[in-house]
Amino acid sequence: MFAFSRPLSIEWGDCDPAGIVYYPRYFAMFDSSTAALFAAALGYNKFEMLRRHNIIGFPMVETGAKFFTPSRYGETVTIESRIAFLKRSSFGVAHALRRADGATAIEAQETRVWAAHHPEQPGRIIGVEIPEEVRQKLGAAS
Amino acid sequence: MFAFSRPLSIEWGDCDPAGIVYYPRYFAMFDSSTAALFAAALGYNKFEMLRRHNIIGFPMVETGAKFFTPSRYGETVTIESRIAFLKRSSFGVAHALRRADGATAIEAQETRVWAAHHPEQPGRIIGVEIPEEVRQKLGAAS
Amino acid sequence: MFAFSRPLSIEWGDCDPAGIVYYPRYFAMFDSSTAALFAAALGYNKFEMLRRHNIIGFPMVETGAKFFTPSRYGETVTIESRIAFLKRSSFGVAHALRRADGATAIEAQETRVWAAHHPEQPGRIIGVEIPEEVRQKLGAAS
Amino acid sequence: MFAFSRPLSIEWGDCDPAGIVYYPRYFAMFDSSTAALFAAALGYNKFEMLRRHNIIGFPMVETGAKFFTPSRYGETVTIESRIAFLKRSSFGVAHALRRADGATAIEAQETRVWAAHHPEQPGRIIGVEIPEEVRQKLGAAS
Repeated sequence: MFAFSRPLSIEWGDCDPAGIVYYPRYFAMFDSSTAALFAAALGYNKFEMLRRHNIIGFPMVETGAKFFTPSRYGETVTIESRIAFLKRSSFGVAHALRRADGATAIEAQETRVWAAHHPEQPGRIIGVEIPEEVRQKLGAAS
Repeated sequence: MFAFSRPLSIEWGDCDPAGIVYYPRYFAMFDSSTAALFAAALGYNKFEMLRRHNIIGFPMVETGAKFFTPSRYGETVTIESRIAFLKRSSFGVAHALRRADGATAIEAQETRVWAAHHPEQPGRIIGVEIPEEVRQKLGAAS
Repeated sequence: MFAFSRPLSIEWGDCDPAGIVYYPRYFAMFDSSTAALFAAALGYNKFEMLRRHNIIGFPMVETGAKFFTPSRYGETVTIESRIAFLKRSSFGVAHALRRADGATAIEAQETRVWAAHHPEQPGRIIGVEIPEEVRQKLGAAS
Repeated sequence: MFAFSRPLSIEWGDCDPAGIVYYPRYFAMFDSSTAALFAAALGYNKFEMLRRHNIIGFPMVETGAKFFTPSRYGETVTIESRIAFLKRSSFGVAHALRRADGATAIEAQETRVWAAHHPEQPGRIIGVEIPEEVRQKLGAAS
């Protein structure tokens, strides 16, 4: 399945009064990593992905994370992300955040749904089938 | 065990281009709810809590959330939080985010550690025993 | 002109490693105050405001702030906001953030435009005339 | 005076329900650019800078921004930052955010103070003299 890795600088504004990353910020980092994984797999960015496939995004259904060691501003870390599973209209992503010394600071996983506006009920969001093009590109080893 | 509930307005800035809450923001809401639960149980705020007990906070060890329905800006929701368990130096909190119609939009749980600076190794954070005063106030039914 | 005031708790997640509010967070607080001012003036929330008037929001054109004293987590502050001017398709808001002791911590002002999608060019945003209903409600003393 | 430029991807989580960057996020981007400018000038990151010079950071005194065109997720922009002035204990930074087509989307400026804990009054923050090493490295053309 497709995998994607990116370096990331921990910023001052990511950190809390304890001097370590404010944990909700990690979820924003993982969200950006999932978007970057898709952009790398598909060859176009999230804006184009939504336009082309007529979806509103891939909202989170369930997520969880284990935090082993804190990170602080000034550090450069790496987030490794990979597609963990692919179902009809949902998919899983696993993320690992590694410190510069290679230690795993966080492990997280997420389940998302490929979602569109309901064709008749305004404001309602429903899961729709992941297109074959997307499925093939995500399923491929990177 | 202690429980705490608070209403919350979903703000424009909490929401993403799909018009629904950007999910990392929910973790910030839950984090504030945990702080508010402690303030309600102890009778003083987080700043005073850190000062009095000589800790750096209660960093997250593990968290997870299930998202049942999205919320959008302009909505008022309620976050119900309760102490789920109390160990020597760690504790659990369970959160439920309810919509105005009473439906549960999100269920989340978290495990945190009562943490201080290591007495000898600068920059290192360690779990320390939760003080008896705190334990008793959290253990009490609200 | 219309004015609106609200209390606000400074949260742990609003603060940086110096223990004081990370200043970009103040702009999010002011943005929410402007939305709350409009909701108070109009009698309906921002979601309904966009739907009713067929706009995409009121994007920022120019903003500035002076920071006199820092605030830290655990504090309760008050944000006082008022409409500073009303033009054909733009308006100004002035914000003052007061500490519990009454001292002014921040003064900020903003100019925004009442904005809609261009009727013919997809993706383009243009200023449109502020409706008379809105103008009258904002112009009224509160 | 020292100048620094960096590319930046606009993320989904940076954007609001109008599909454009939520403006408080721009201030976080500028804050990171100022930190990156200092790291580039000094040769060490912000964590090391605070440790070496015994300061708590460089809090904002005054900032302002003009927004000419919105940016949306998926875009790559460039932030150009430069030291605008250097005083005894304060300094100015000017930022310009350019779109991929070279157009200026935002111009911003900020005044910050080189700040430390008051030597006798706990919790109080005061401006202190910018060290000569820092002054020389910032003053140099990049």
